[in-house]
Amino acid sequence: MSRPVTNPRHGRMRNLLSIADLGPDVALGINEVMTLTDSFVEVSERTIPKVPALRGRTVVSLFFEDSTRTRLSFETAAKRLSADTMNFSVSTSSVKKGESLRDTIETIEAMGVDAIVVRHASAGVPRQVAQWATSAVINAGDGWHEHPTQALLDCYTIRQRFGDVAGKHIAIVGDIRHSRVARSNVAAFTALGADVTLVAPPTLLPPSLEGWPVKISTDIDAVLPTVDVCYLLRMQRERMTEALIPSIREYSNRFGLNEKRAELLPDHALIMHPGPMNRGVEIDAAVADHPNTVIVDQVRNGVAVRMAVLFLLLGSGTTWGGEADV
Amino acid sequence: MSRPVTNPRHGRMRNLLSIADLGPDVALGINEVMTLTDSFVEVSERTIPKVPALRGRTVVSLFFEDSTRTRLSFETAAKRLSADTMNFSVSTSSVKKGESLRDTIETIEAMGVDAIVVRHASAGVPRQVAQWATSAVINAGDGWHEHPTQALLDCYTIRQRFGDVAGKHIAIVGDIRHSRVARSNVAAFTALGADVTLVAPPTLLPPSLEGWPVKISTDIDAVLPTVDVCYLLRMQRERMTEALIPSIREYSNRFGLNEKRAELLPDHALIMHPGPMNRGVEIDAAVADHPNTVIVDQVRNGVAVRMAVLFLLLGSGTTWGGEADV
Amino acid sequence: MSRPVTNPRHGRMRNLLSIADLGPDVALGINEVMTLTDSFVEVSERTIPKVPALRGRTVVSLFFEDSTRTRLSFETAAKRLSADTMNFSVSTSSVKKGESLRDTIETIEAMGVDAIVVRHASAGVPRQVAQWATSAVINAGDGWHEHPTQALLDCYTIRQRFGDVAGKHIAIVGDIRHSRVARSNVAAFTALGADVTLVAPPTLLPPSLEGWPVKISTDIDAVLPTVDVCYLLRMQRERMTEALIPSIREYSNRFGLNEKRAELLPDHALIMHPGPMNRGVEIDAAVADHPNTVIVDQVRNGVAVRMAVLFLLLGSGTTWGGEADV
Repeated sequence: MSRPVTNPRHGRMRNLLSIADLGPDVALGINEVMTLTDSFVEVSERTIPKVPALRGRTVVSLFFEDSTRTRLSFETAAKRLSADTMNFSVSTSSVKKGESLRDTIETIEAMGVDAIVVRHASAGVPRQVAQWATSAVINAGDGWHEHPTQALLDCYTIRQRFGDVAGKHIAIVGDIRHSRVARSNVAAFTALGADVTLVAPPTLLPPSLEGWPVKISTDIDAVLPTVDVCYLLRMQRERMTEALIPSIREYSNRFGLNEKRAELLPDHALIMHPGPMNRGVEIDAAVADHPNTVIVDQVRNGVAVRMAVLFLLLGSGTTWGGEADV
Repeated sequence: MSRPVTNPRHGRMRNLLSIADLGPDVALGINEVMTLTDSFVEVSERTIPKVPALRGRTVVSLFFEDSTRTRLSFETAAKRLSADTMNFSVSTSSVKKGESLRDTIETIEAMGVDAIVVRHASAGVPRQVAQWATSAVINAGDGWHEHPTQALLDCYTIRQRFGDVAGKHIAIVGDIRHSRVARSNVAAFTALGADVTLVAPPTLLPPSLEGWPVKISTDIDAVLPTVDVCYLLRMQRERMTEALIPSIREYSNRFGLNEKRAELLPDHALIMHPGPMNRGVEIDAAVADHPNTVIVDQVRNGVAVRMAVLFLLLGSGTTWGGEADV
Repeated sequence: MSRPVTNPRHGRMRNLLSIADLGPDVALGINEVMTLTDSFVEVSERTIPKVPALRGRTVVSLFFEDSTRTRLSFETAAKRLSADTMNFSVSTSSVKKGESLRDTIETIEAMGVDAIVVRHASAGVPRQVAQWATSAVINAGDGWHEHPTQALLDCYTIRQRFGDVAGKHIAIVGDIRHSRVARSNVAAFTALGADVTLVAPPTLLPPSLEGWPVKISTDIDAVLPTVDVCYLLRMQRERMTEALIPSIREYSNRFGLNEKRAELLPDHALIMHPGPMNRGVEIDAAVADHPNTVIVDQVRNGVAVRMAVLFLLLGSGTTWGGEADV
């Protein structure tokens, strides 16, 4: 099926599958989302936090992996824009074959949907969906590949605290290898001009880091004093059974952000986490409640960032990069 | 419990449990739904595809069998009419006894519901629900019995392509015996004056066909050149374990619409399927994507047809057979 | 975390965790809910049963125990007030640790929620949630502890039939020990000046009844002729496996309200049940359909009572005890 490279109604961006979709100049694209997010943060603080921008539009969640948090964040964003929301819960069994997934997409679209928010355990599924769909497709996380709205809300949260992401030193700590959050964040942070250091045991780094504009370290204590942001990834217990780490306790001892280690951080440094946290594993309970920990801000900004993304993809009367009348 | 035969607010139709509920003159009833569907197809094409017709009404889905597609189609229809929707998911265990189902219905109704959309694995359950309920009941598929909105959307799709259903030759191919879709479609197609041929191995035909105004054939290749519509049913894999067919491959060889067989069809003939398709079983992948295949139209028209049905059952200010102000 | 004792926006009541939360003078608090419920019963009878009172507010259901009925009642109430609703379904596994539940609450709140309706198998969880949350928390049932909106709808139903709860004799029959409904109802009924008799086998009474202003009886036949209300609790089959009752049949024979026993009731006496009923266990099918059985009224009033509670907790422009402009 051939498709136009650009969609005249929406300007440059038709789908948001990866950070690279934000345009030939990724930094410009991210900054445009940030500016629009400012408006939606303001909307979210109103007594009635709703605008009619997407009235009559329908946003469907197509989650093949369960994630109540991310799904609710997108649904809340859609409802605040006055869009209708639908939930297409798919049993994994019914989508084993490509044809069947394609039929699912065509069925959903025939009902009259404007955006499909896809999460899937396999990298690349959202892009495949986008090839079949005529509506806008948003990647809400695909395997170890990307999770672009997470990166956008992380950028927004850093910008909210520091005014800018450029020139900041950001350490991403933990299971980089299996993390779509890390991949999207490396792309976004470096595009905005931040310096990124990945901190992990060698078994949790990707097989190749060629082309990643990052530094690597296995010594968190050496890195922490130099960072503006310490971004912790969630440690999944299955990494232990896969023998990628000796034990959860060992990981926690060497890479977990405990109280003593948190004292190594400069006073202004932010502590971030994409949630849900494993308190006591990658982060100590006391550190999770530290005033520099902005995890709740990340969740709050997530709704406004997703409003911005939905508005850019579906809103009429505005162009990518233009002024939005919200 | 005694109930009025007609409901003064809604004209003749109180519930839609079977095609026969469409009135003493079924063809007239179907055509009235079709005319109203034309209006809702137009609504669905608007920038904001919503009308306030059922604002404040509540439509509840009571699905004892899972069917995301049909449920979403009804929910989308209800939302486009500005009705509220609710989902009453029932574990099969809690409704083993008739009393308990009745209590469920009374509970749902006491919360203030206007229509109940029921799907159940047993034939007759929606009619039983309608005996207890005072709100409108719509059968969204009951066992091997009926699925009337499917038949209405199929009639609409044929009429949309050909202008009329009367005089057309329609082959329904596959597991007729266990198909509620076949039962409702035979009733609707023949009421509208179509000629229907059922094509199936003898084990997949109903035990008795007395009173069905249809022809029978076991030779699909002989029938295909004569049809205007080839309507394929979904083959369920359990039919093989029940020894009703020798194997899926054997069924596919003898009755599946593969590319070679599709060439036997007249150029104008439509290929239809109620979904979800088993590509490679009852239909080949290439045939599913053929330009005469109108499966996506069926899904799209399903929303508009269900809007028409909900509007006829719940709308005020209109009478069955009168002009609807949408 | 320190929190203000009163919330200036909502008057005295910030959360509804137990009947005691209705204020220092519980009877006054209940009567204020009742008066407001009258308005919402009137709203529910309108052609379009909706008011814009909570437009832009979001009510989230956080149910750790499944209960379609109670969840739908709250959702219907929220929608009739024009609030948005969200469903946060939690797998029990993800909330084994207190920290994790707390993170869940903080995540939900960061998305911008105004009320959290919590059901949990453990007593005290809603109160713990309220300590973490800044939004209003409503207990929709916690273990054997309380279910305050059930008690409020029961009070309203009695008041609707008799004009007053004061001076009535109410028997609560069945598994008092494990019943949050019994606990909330004893608190509410006695606060309003009713006389309450608990009727149960000794094994189904709480270990201590000190401080419960109730009478006890093991002889239902002696009590029934003296009551204005016979309130039956649901008998759960696991009580038999726990050896608290010899058999379901034995319980039914000694405490079930069968037709013969129902004849012992005064003509005016109401039969109530929180639902879902076990017909044939605690209540005979014929008795369930008796004209004095007001179970359907309880469900209907449940929506209006929950509208009143949500309005009191979230509505602006009104004060607890003041006039509500609905």
